[in-house]
Amino acid sequence: MRAGPSQEEIRRFNLGALLRYVHSRGPTSRAELTARLGLNRSTIGALTADLVAAGLVREEVPRGHGRAGRPSLVVRPEPGMYVFAFTIDADRVTAARVGLGGVVLDRREVARPRGELPPVEVVAPLADFVRSMQAAIPPTARYVGSGAAVSAMVRREDGMVRLAPYVGWVDEPLGEALGKVLGTDHPVTIRNGADLRVLAEHTRGAAVGCDNVIYLHGDAGIGGGIIAGGRPVTGHGGYGGEVGHMVVNPNGKPCGCGARGCWETEVGEQALLRAAGRDGYGREQVTAVVEAAARGDAAAKAALRDVADWLGFGVANLVNVFNPEMVIFGGGLREVYLAAAAQVRSRLNRNGLPACREHVRLRTPVLGDDAALIGAAEAAFEALLADPLDAAAPAVAPT
Amino acid sequence: MRAGPSQEEIRRFNLGALLRYVHSRGPTSRAELTARLGLNRSTIGALTADLVAAGLVREEVPRGHGRAGRPSLVVRPEPGMYVFAFTIDADRVTAARVGLGGVVLDRREVARPRGELPPVEVVAPLADFVRSMQAAIPPTARYVGSGAAVSAMVRREDGMVRLAPYVGWVDEPLGEALGKVLGTDHPVTIRNGADLRVLAEHTRGAAVGCDNVIYLHGDAGIGGGIIAGGRPVTGHGGYGGEVGHMVVNPNGKPCGCGARGCWETEVGEQALLRAAGRDGYGREQVTAVVEAAARGDAAAKAALRDVADWLGFGVANLVNVFNPEMVIFGGGLREVYLAAAAQVRSRLNRNGLPACREHVRLRTPVLGDDAALIGAAEAAFEALLADPLDAAAPAVAPT
Repeated sequence: MRAGPSQEEIRRFNLGALLRYVHSRGPTSRAELTARLGLNRSTIGALTADLVAAGLVREEVPRGHGRAGRPSLVVRPEPGMYVFAFTIDADRVTAARVGLGGVVLDRREVARPRGELPPVEVVAPLADFVRSMQAAIPPTARYVGSGAAVSAMVRREDGMVRLAPYVGWVDEPLGEALGKVLGTDHPVTIRNGADLRVLAEHTRGAAVGCDNVIYLHGDAGIGGGIIAGGRPVTGHGGYGGEVGHMVVNPNGKPCGCGARGCWETEVGEQALLRAAGRDGYGREQVTAVVEAAARGDAAAKAALRDVADWLGFGVANLVNVFNPEMVIFGGGLREVYLAAAAQVRSRLNRNGLPACREHVRLRTPVLGDDAALIGAAEAAFEALLADPLDAAAPAVAPT
Repeated sequence: MRAGPSQEEIRRFNLGALLRYVHSRGPTSRAELTARLGLNRSTIGALTADLVAAGLVREEVPRGHGRAGRPSLVVRPEPGMYVFAFTIDADRVTAARVGLGGVVLDRREVARPRGELPPVEVVAPLADFVRSMQAAIPPTARYVGSGAAVSAMVRREDGMVRLAPYVGWVDEPLGEALGKVLGTDHPVTIRNGADLRVLAEHTRGAAVGCDNVIYLHGDAGIGGGIIAGGRPVTGHGGYGGEVGHMVVNPNGKPCGCGARGCWETEVGEQALLRAAGRDGYGREQVTAVVEAAARGDAAAKAALRDVADWLGFGVANLVNVFNPEMVIFGGGLREVYLAAAAQVRSRLNRNGLPACREHVRLRTPVLGDDAALIGAAEAAFEALLADPLDAAAPAVAPT
């Protein structure tokens, strides 16, 4: 119930809206911006001039312009404005430099042994990556911030990792540790991986224009990223979306969280591999089961059918609660869904209420495995997009 | 990504903010409004004058003002602005006239036989109630609109009831039927009962100031009303919140929806009564089981323990997904929760992730069984609060 904004707040809001538009949709003519943002031509002109002066966009004559008359200039985001984006997964860590507009400019990745690992051993290679990427950064480029995705419950306000079972972390101040090793005064934005994946797909992937989306990511566990009414569902402390720990089978297997029959015990990697009579872990093993099933391997087929049924089961629960337009299956769940879509849909149809499921589309990520990295970049750009002039003040870049 | 508002839009936004404040918080001094809305004194004065002129608020010298100097005038909502609010429950229908500020000015209620009933037989008594309330309406009073709560899946855009198992409705145009029988050109806003209950408790009940709330209402089934990040979770078509059809027990009892082991088959009225070896239905029967358990009746105690355990089970699932600050138990679930809170909390603690549940408060409704009626009134006032001057144009009242 706060009051309406002042003139200056509106100007900043409009600057953010324009910058966000070209950042997520790409280079856009002034004419189209005028139409899309519902502002008049002179306002668009003034806003663009402000953003050009701040080094956030540039204006260009559109390519192939040969007609008579003055062309509508194209506004494009300035990729010299960049962030560092990191992902910390069960089996690898990744770092990238990402320019405004979502362009991955540079990228490093290294596999890491599975199992518990102190944060210092996780963040060290990320800092090395950043150092190794420095040489290629043009002197005119400007650092905006950093974001990291981790399969964990993360306290939104300060990036404290409350629980990350697959690296064995409990209450680890990852945001602080990353900031320290990067040597920047800028805070590093830490978020749950699935929350960032849905953000990325919503901004520039499968779910553009969808206001009610559920992203399910399968690796060792199941992560959920949810957007309802166009806004992320993060909950009171930022821990929402733990759909992997929705109990679906009271007589199921014990889960690492202490409960029994959590959804991830029925549809996680281990569930599939165990049901198929296999050892090991990781995406390659999941793919191997899917391929074996395609070749007619009876155990693999039965395992896939069973996991796909449980997948549809949990999706139906979420569809009844959220009435989404789209459910996206990522990570190992992408493989399972693509190989057994009919099974998933059949269970969804059986358990989902008709009105809740009638418009739901089942999809795989457009951004693939890069969704978390893109999402981490989006999180790092967020302050700039929310208030371009304020956040465009020079930040101390990592060294 | 639409652009910032114009000056006129801001003025209307601020008028709405001021009116909403006094509507939900009650009479407020100009001084406090200045502080709460973050506007300066002269703006508050101008906005108040506009609302006074539109007949939406009045200004008064505060009671008991005896000090020297000019007192800060108190702005109070004008209860002459009224709506009709209706509830359609499994066993009764209610109509009320509610004034701006949420005051119930008049009220009628009648029990109805359980079971299937054509919409025309449900809406007829509501129209009679409205006629019988007309005599007491002062000639200066002004009709704003009508809202109705029904335990059903309701299409948000037009009040089409897609599914209401307990009255046997499938695709019944309730909004249209109610509008016709009331003889008003104003649309009647139809909403799911649990969605309206959480709205009411969030506006003026247990959850004021709580941005992440789950309301669970038990009668024949289980309805859920969810607010996440301060906004209702309604989903793509308005059908979200069907938590009663989250399947918690794959080997459980068949549910009316066609699935098996839905949460409501484990914690609904019938589950409790059957487990206690009793026939019948309704709140009185639920209360009878709770009282029998308190007197030491072994079957009732066991039934209550079992239902409370399943109640905590489903709450834990929702807590892991939503990380709420508050869960409110209403209807028959209020009785179950009050009688077996330790059992509910114990299961929540066992199945809920610590970070997701650490700040959650379990509560009962402050507005009691009136929450749906108050919520229906809130829904009917919504257009007025969103844009006071536009919606304050005279509407044709029911006759």
